[in-house]
Amino acid sequence: MSGVAPLPRLLVERAVEAALLEDLGRAGDITTLATIPAETMSKAVIAARKPGRLAGLAFAESAFRQIDPAVAFLAEAADGDRLDPGTVVARIEGPARAILSAERVALNFLGHLSGVATLTAAYAAKVAHTGARIVCTRKTTPGLRAFEKHAVRCGGGANHRFGLDDAVLIKDNHIAACGGVALAIERARAFAGHLVKVEVEVDTLDQLREAMTAGPDAVLLDNMAPAMLREAVAIVAGRAVTEASGGVSLETVAAIAETGVERISVGAITHSAPVLDLGLDFLG
Amino acid sequence: MSGVAPLPRLLVERAVEAALLEDLGRAGDITTLATIPAETMSKAVIAARKPGRLAGLAFAESAFRQIDPAVAFLAEAADGDRLDPGTVVARIEGPARAILSAERVALNFLGHLSGVATLTAAYAAKVAHTGARIVCTRKTTPGLRAFEKHAVRCGGGANHRFGLDDAVLIKDNHIAACGGVALAIERARAFAGHLVKVEVEVDTLDQLREAMTAGPDAVLLDNMAPAMLREAVAIVAGRAVTEASGGVSLETVAAIAETGVERISVGAITHSAPVLDLGLDFLG
Amino acid sequence: MSGVAPLPRLLVERAVEAALLEDLGRAGDITTLATIPAETMSKAVIAARKPGRLAGLAFAESAFRQIDPAVAFLAEAADGDRLDPGTVVARIEGPARAILSAERVALNFLGHLSGVATLTAAYAAKVAHTGARIVCTRKTTPGLRAFEKHAVRCGGGANHRFGLDDAVLIKDNHIAACGGVALAIERARAFAGHLVKVEVEVDTLDQLREAMTAGPDAVLLDNMAPAMLREAVAIVAGRAVTEASGGVSLETVAAIAETGVERISVGAITHSAPVLDLGLDFLG
Amino acid sequence: MSGVAPLPRLLVERAVEAALLEDLGRAGDITTLATIPAETMSKAVIAARKPGRLAGLAFAESAFRQIDPAVAFLAEAADGDRLDPGTVVARIEGPARAILSAERVALNFLGHLSGVATLTAAYAAKVAHTGARIVCTRKTTPGLRAFEKHAVRCGGGANHRFGLDDAVLIKDNHIAACGGVALAIERARAFAGHLVKVEVEVDTLDQLREAMTAGPDAVLLDNMAPAMLREAVAIVAGRAVTEASGGVSLETVAAIAETGVERISVGAITHSAPVLDLGLDFLG
Amino acid sequence: MSGVAPLPRLLVERAVEAALLEDLGRAGDITTLATIPAETMSKAVIAARKPGRLAGLAFAESAFRQIDPAVAFLAEAADGDRLDPGTVVARIEGPARAILSAERVALNFLGHLSGVATLTAAYAAKVAHTGARIVCTRKTTPGLRAFEKHAVRCGGGANHRFGLDDAVLIKDNHIAACGGVALAIERARAFAGHLVKVEVEVDTLDQLREAMTAGPDAVLLDNMAPAMLREAVAIVAGRAVTEASGGVSLETVAAIAETGVERISVGAITHSAPVLDLGLDFLG
Amino acid sequence: MSGVAPLPRLLVERAVEAALLEDLGRAGDITTLATIPAETMSKAVIAARKPGRLAGLAFAESAFRQIDPAVAFLAEAADGDRLDPGTVVARIEGPARAILSAERVALNFLGHLSGVATLTAAYAAKVAHTGARIVCTRKTTPGLRAFEKHAVRCGGGANHRFGLDDAVLIKDNHIAACGGVALAIERARAFAGHLVKVEVEVDTLDQLREAMTAGPDAVLLDNMAPAMLREAVAIVAGRAVTEASGGVSLETVAAIAETGVERISVGAITHSAPVLDLGLDFLG
Repeated sequence: MSGVAPLPRLLVERAVEAALLEDLGRAGDITTLATIPAETMSKAVIAARKPGRLAGLAFAESAFRQIDPAVAFLAEAADGDRLDPGTVVARIEGPARAILSAERVALNFLGHLSGVATLTAAYAAKVAHTGARIVCTRKTTPGLRAFEKHAVRCGGGANHRFGLDDAVLIKDNHIAACGGVALAIERARAFAGHLVKVEVEVDTLDQLREAMTAGPDAVLLDNMAPAMLREAVAIVAGRAVTEASGGVSLETVAAIAETGVERISVGAITHSAPVLDLGLDFLG
Repeated sequence: MSGVAPLPRLLVERAVEAALLEDLGRAGDITTLATIPAETMSKAVIAARKPGRLAGLAFAESAFRQIDPAVAFLAEAADGDRLDPGTVVARIEGPARAILSAERVALNFLGHLSGVATLTAAYAAKVAHTGARIVCTRKTTPGLRAFEKHAVRCGGGANHRFGLDDAVLIKDNHIAACGGVALAIERARAFAGHLVKVEVEVDTLDQLREAMTAGPDAVLLDNMAPAMLREAVAIVAGRAVTEASGGVSLETVAAIAETGVERISVGAITHSAPVLDLGLDFLG
Repeated sequence: MSGVAPLPRLLVERAVEAALLEDLGRAGDITTLATIPAETMSKAVIAARKPGRLAGLAFAESAFRQIDPAVAFLAEAADGDRLDPGTVVARIEGPARAILSAERVALNFLGHLSGVATLTAAYAAKVAHTGARIVCTRKTTPGLRAFEKHAVRCGGGANHRFGLDDAVLIKDNHIAACGGVALAIERARAFAGHLVKVEVEVDTLDQLREAMTAGPDAVLLDNMAPAMLREAVAIVAGRAVTEASGGVSLETVAAIAETGVERISVGAITHSAPVLDLGLDFLG
Repeated sequence: MSGVAPLPRLLVERAVEAALLEDLGRAGDITTLATIPAETMSKAVIAARKPGRLAGLAFAESAFRQIDPAVAFLAEAADGDRLDPGTVVARIEGPARAILSAERVALNFLGHLSGVATLTAAYAAKVAHTGARIVCTRKTTPGLRAFEKHAVRCGGGANHRFGLDDAVLIKDNHIAACGGVALAIERARAFAGHLVKVEVEVDTLDQLREAMTAGPDAVLLDNMAPAMLREAVAIVAGRAVTEASGGVSLETVAAIAETGVERISVGAITHSAPVLDLGLDFLG
Repeated sequence: MSGVAPLPRLLVERAVEAALLEDLGRAGDITTLATIPAETMSKAVIAARKPGRLAGLAFAESAFRQIDPAVAFLAEAADGDRLDPGTVVARIEGPARAILSAERVALNFLGHLSGVATLTAAYAAKVAHTGARIVCTRKTTPGLRAFEKHAVRCGGGANHRFGLDDAVLIKDNHIAACGGVALAIERARAFAGHLVKVEVEVDTLDQLREAMTAGPDAVLLDNMAPAMLREAVAIVAGRAVTEASGGVSLETVAAIAETGVERISVGAITHSAPVLDLGLDFLG
Repeated sequence: MSGVAPLPRLLVERAVEAALLEDLGRAGDITTLATIPAETMSKAVIAARKPGRLAGLAFAESAFRQIDPAVAFLAEAADGDRLDPGTVVARIEGPARAILSAERVALNFLGHLSGVATLTAAYAAKVAHTGARIVCTRKTTPGLRAFEKHAVRCGGGANHRFGLDDAVLIKDNHIAACGGVALAIERARAFAGHLVKVEVEVDTLDQLREAMTAGPDAVLLDNMAPAMLREAVAIVAGRAVTEASGGVSLETVAAIAETGVERISVGAITHSAPVLDLGLDFLG
């Protein structure tokens, strides 16, 4: 089992409760109540049906437990693990009604978050021969940001800021309003606390040079071709973290990484990752 | 503008409020507060950058208004509309700070839901020459089910049940517990109210024939090849709604539809739709 | 013990928590805190004081447990059971403070829901010699709908739709806006998913005949005298579920049921049921 | 219009929002969306169909406004007003969809709360020739206590304590734990703040005499026959508020009031009041 | 251990959950996750660093348990206890990550509430030779009122009303609107239930004399010098609870108490109490 | 009016709503309802009674508006403004009932937050002749952290991290678990995203020297005397932000600032600030 740091328990519990209520509606699982006796006990496994990376196991565990504390959930894998088709990620035992009623919510979290981890891992694999790290963006699914960012870490990626408040990211409109990139950085520095980093987005090398005079913590090199990126990295010369964005795909990412940039941000890993196919199978 | 029925206002408001709080965090949009004067007014447009179908415009409107009621939001398209690259979907005017702070939440909803609508429309186009309708499943993103189901309608699809409680869907475990498909249907009928439909999942023609003796409202023909589906449709002979599922892709869906099934359920349209690229551009 | 299907645990927990907070206010049970030592342990029973039907036992159990997990709650009856005066429904043992502080909330749920079950059972008894079932309506107490519908099942009744979204019920204003009952049914069919039933309310036999041409799943025969109802049942001839409403009382319901209608909806069972008298008595 | 003091706006808004969400479910009013065009405007009135007392008009107003701020709601009566069959309580004008979708929630609040007010008024009328006031109890519907207590005031009744925390009410178990009624009162006085009243329940005259030595603010004379009540009132002699409870019905309440007790508490007015029949009718 | 009555468990749990979510933010305790292995177990003590009074131990216990149920929390003191520098109030044992992540929330509650208790105790000590009690006001920290009022009890003070609804407090604007203090009291009596006390604020002896004709339960003698207070107490002559307010400080409170007033309300004990310094120390 | 950036509207609204509900309880402002006619209109001003710094005006505005949208609130000062005794901060006009009912909540926020701003300003004034900035800590009042941090900015202070998740702060236990300060910094760097700053707490100069080898963004110099602080600043030599903490008081802070440290963190400004006395006075 790998060592991706867990999400706060309280956040997981609340998200799962909301999802269960969304699925149970007002009358609960009427199919199961009509057809399965309360006393029927079952065993089941959750297993991968496609290769990928696991993320979200705590959500699955919480779904079964919240439906019925009598369900035993035995994890056989951990968030961040590589999965092959057939890899069992958890064994479940308890009232059949509870297993059936929680199944879809458990799988919806697992599939979505593992999908994010899996796509992140695909990008990460393409840049593994370089020093670049894949990072996420704020282009996340409403309500799931912290969880998708966890999934990015499970896939070997790293995190960008979590919201509008935990780091400064100066874009074109902010620069325009201040009348220049260096001025914008200075205003941000003066405004933000000393534990807040300041990143600035630039799309030309001239803008980058001006930005560097104000000492940003990071520079977002937007939509630059590899040759230009390489030049940008040389200009920065280690004085700030370099991040590339724009036009990043599984086809282009290696070339971008080879320019020497340290971070490559990819919206697709959170907003367009297909689900990873995992299934629950009853035993015996 | 097209006529897709709107979501309940209250549901939209609450979801947008939660997403704004997720993005604002504890300190709000510190970049904008540091660099944009409170009194700066701006105009912007939201426009498609790729072709697709629009869904979720009410979420965007709500995001700007909740951040600042002084923002004017003028819709120029409606949910369900076809979008070309460049199609303007809304014009926005008001305090620059508010527009910048709400932008990402607005686009995250719009992009995700329009992505669902767009993929649904792609499937729907493949079966337009038949009587089949594309329908969604319960394989949705946690917290967004009602909204994704709305997006499916925007893409020309139809809805399956919304949760565990509004229709009966009998699957293999339920059948096994009852000792037979007909018995399971009878128990469900006896249990559920007279306004609840009963659908049963079968994977063989024999099971289908047995199921039909109990008069289900709908039959889910799971993982059947087209030839077998055609036979199944003949067996049902209009006595129940026929639905195909399993192995459905943009490549296979037309052949499935041509078997005469009335509904084809596709998990991918909600769980694996890539975002539709829409952007916000400041004017002048 | 009978077999009425349980409500989702999560719904019960949340409703009980809200009711406890409503009763505890800001300072809690000041009488008990002032007069009962923390270490005093007690035993008590909850018993019926009048004959009736039990509903809501899970709410009582949750109230005591949420106030103090140290309270043991032993059910001696189950939802749906017939109660005589003196029938013990549960035994409780634990800190006296907790028992006293949770008592009123527990009894308020039990009394209200058992009241609904008891009145439903009275109606159901009147029609037991026919094939008709008593069903509820949306005329429920705000915040308690799902629980009152559960209580209706405990009383031997069946459920109508749970809200505006899980079934179509076309009434006079909807028909007028469409220009005819058959058109209204067609629009509803086209709009709703294939797992949504369509019921239409009619108040004349001509309207009923027109409605039947559009194939509704159910017809609501509103305010028809028994003779007319009998005729309506004949017109429908098994092609839709027949439901009578309006002017239903304990005096009239048998005659209505004898017309052959399959469902009789009664608003009074949820909106006007007097509480069933249950009490908590300390032992020893 | 009469002068019953209004409930806090914030409490009304939140309760109505919850009730609307309960009724709208996940997909909203699908019947209305399918059959009524968005642009259809309507007028309607809410009127009483039976005589009674009005309570809860603010809930109705809030229901329509929350569904659509474009609905105009013109009150023609006020909480506390006497209603005859046909009395119009409000005129409504706006989008037909909104009026239809909010109707049931509006009427459920109005009917329930007016039912409480009407039954309270019936009790109050029976004691109008005496100085006694009808008061409510904590036997209220979970989630609706503050609203039912408002309805009691609309019916001419007065309020007992609102919860476990705003007044002390010493009952038999509390007395037993303290080893005497006077000791229990003393402990309560020592515990509670100087703005908290202390009431004690007694069921014999001896107990009453002992209680009075400790100077309670009020005494609850439980299940005493009129002759004994009269004696109790004489014993108290104006030193505390006297309240009768137990065995109170519309038949017995006048005789109880004539004993000189100042308050008569009646659980039935909140837990067993049948709904008052009010209806919404479209005009033209 | 002393005997201050506990707060309702449910209120404590919810407040602590909110505070933990406030501190954990979206990503949790990243420092601890980065540096402390999941399996590291630790022991720690919470101890006072300054002398004072303890309040809020249940909040600390809840914080550790909610972060991780595996943490054992052993209380060694109780709310209301006097603390010396070094007094251990609790021993904690469990996963080091959980102890570190919950520490600040636990101490923030403990420090704030113990600060309120400590300042209250300082005031109470100054009046211990008299019959006067120190009481709180509604000048509390938003969101923490019930908890601060508990802390006041822990410090040996007593409680004033908890909100606008549980007692009447007539001030100058209310009197002016009614045209006289006696009229205002009468209106309040007629309006409020029989379990609601009525207090009136007066600032002259004439006003007091007029007020006493209407029989208030308590009088708030505002901003009167000791000599005048003494006269006021004589005028009231035991017919109402006397309360002094205004100009109360640790220097003046004894003189005020010696006038014979029964209650002295002090806003500072809730709105201006400095935190009590308590710390958490790891063992070994 | 000064230019302190506003808090997100949504956060303010929610906090004020919760505080109003806390104060209104179940029955609202019964004193005002009993004594003030609904139609009485009033004017009032909120003014400072002591000198200080204003913070929290948006909370006051929201309190009056949420109680009754008919109240007009005209700000005459802005957060961050210096106040003298008598300075009017807002004029209020509208229904007298609303003004009286919202007054306490409005003043509780204003007084508490202005108290934080005022104490911060006092510290800031002591270091104004140096380059040091006063910063807050996580020792805040539960539920009010973001608001107290805003108040710190209003007082001329700057913010430290907002929670456990937005910056790394390595303390002694973290260092011990890693086996060294440099290792701890490296692990944190590897774990955290590139927009997260890493601060490390040291209490000796040797530890500082070791820490600097790992390149932290900031160093927290804990409990060092001025001479040692000066040496520490020299060791850091501009390579990290220097922050002093421990033993900071209004008496000691200037000497600390004169050592050249850039930030001085003071828990007292949030956890022990006395309220600023502001009052609401009715006009005419």
